Amino acid sequence: MWHQTELTLRPYPRGFHLVTREVVSAVPEMAGLKVGLLHVFIQHTSASLTLNENASPDVRRDFERYFNQSVPDGWADFEHRLEGDDDMAAHIKASLLGPSLSLPVRAGRLALGTWQGIYLCEHRDRGGPRRLLLTLTGEK
Amino acid sequence: MWHQTELTLRPYPRGFHLVTREVVSAVPEMAGLKVGLLHVFIQHTSASLTLNENASPDVRRDFERYFNQSVPDGWADFEHRLEGDDDMAAHIKASLLGPSLSLPVRAGRLALGTWQGIYLCEHRDRGGPRRLLLTLTGEK
Amino acid sequence: MWHQTELTLRPYPRGFHLVTREVVSAVPEMAGLKVGLLHVFIQHTSASLTLNENASPDVRRDFERYFNQSVPDGWADFEHRLEGDDDMAAHIKASLLGPSLSLPVRAGRLALGTWQGIYLCEHRDRGGPRRLLLTLTGEK
Repeated sequence: MWHQTELTLRPYPRGFHLVTREVVSAVPEMAGLKVGLLHVFIQHTSASLTLNENASPDVRRDFERYFNQSVPDGWADFEHRLEGDDDMAAHIKASLLGPSLSLPVRAGRLALGTWQGIYLCEHRDRGGPRRLLLTLTGEK
Repeated sequence: MWHQTELTLRPYPRGFHLVTREVVSAVPEMAGLKVGLLHVFIQHTSASLTLNENASPDVRRDFERYFNQSVPDGWADFEHRLEGDDDMAAHIKASLLGPSLSLPVRAGRLALGTWQGIYLCEHRDRGGPRRLLLTLTGEK
Repeated sequence: MWHQTELTLRPYPRGFHLVTREVVSAVPEMAGLKVGLLHVFIQHTSASLTLNENASPDVRRDFERYFNQSVPDGWADFEHRLEGDDDMAAHIKASLLGPSLSLPVRAGRLALGTWQGIYLCEHRDRGGPRRLLLTLTGEK
């Protein structure tokens, strides 16, 4: 069984945001799967996806602090500067975290650990809406 | 063909550890596949999985050194501190390395390069046993 | 439907290189898929794959600058030194960026965003030809 659907996330401010609920709601077809995989893909190069702690908002704020320090906006050695100080840093962060997640499905649900949630990582100051492509495959 | 199985790894000390053998042994069903993918997923947010050099133990020690320097325990700007100095750093490292591996299967075996092995990346001082979920799919 | 094929990339100089065309050309079978996934896997531990901006060459040069600064060749704390100053740094970069990409397929083509392209990330000074294994699965 294969199913594919687009999901456009509303604009989020720069930072790390829990979007597990939005993603899961977009693929009700998952309920019919005994075992499978959900592939979540972001069609952008300045935002990314990761899986991390779903409970404490301070963890998500610390992600933003850490990555801003690790990949500074407008770093002196960056050559690509046309699109603003946050642009090249956003590209690097996007590759460090990655454009997709492959998540196991079991008995009709995502088989995540208790503390795992899907983060949208918005690396631009004004990234706008972000398009995800969700691809579900598995056995009924 | 779909197959899914849980694998609980024994507690490993903080650091990077080769677990290729444990993972492969847990999916004997792989032997029956002509072509496919093995998805290896860790259900935690303070440990991760990566693929790297399977021969020299000093490479794995250098991973630990590098990541400790790059994401310092108890970094001054971290706000999330309740669970100890190694906790927030562990979350960041887990996202830098990622919670899953998708590995090609060919002729009944993982089609890895000669030097590639699966690392369990244990980012906590006392992470305890770690649960993996292995999802195998392919063509017989 | 499953299909798997090897693709050996010609030697690229150290740095980040767009290889979308080479990858797509190696799997003409993709044209027959309504929906699916293309898994691109590199069988090495000192080169990696990522998805990022496909238009400006300066973005790719900034990737090389950033990662050289972030993971310095011959870093003083590295223990693994036998294979040259670029070797251990290459292993770390390879794990930060990752050995594989899972890309959605829709209507016979990769469903990438407008600005997304596949990068070969060559972390060695003389990495030589690099072997990729492409695994295509989906529904006709």
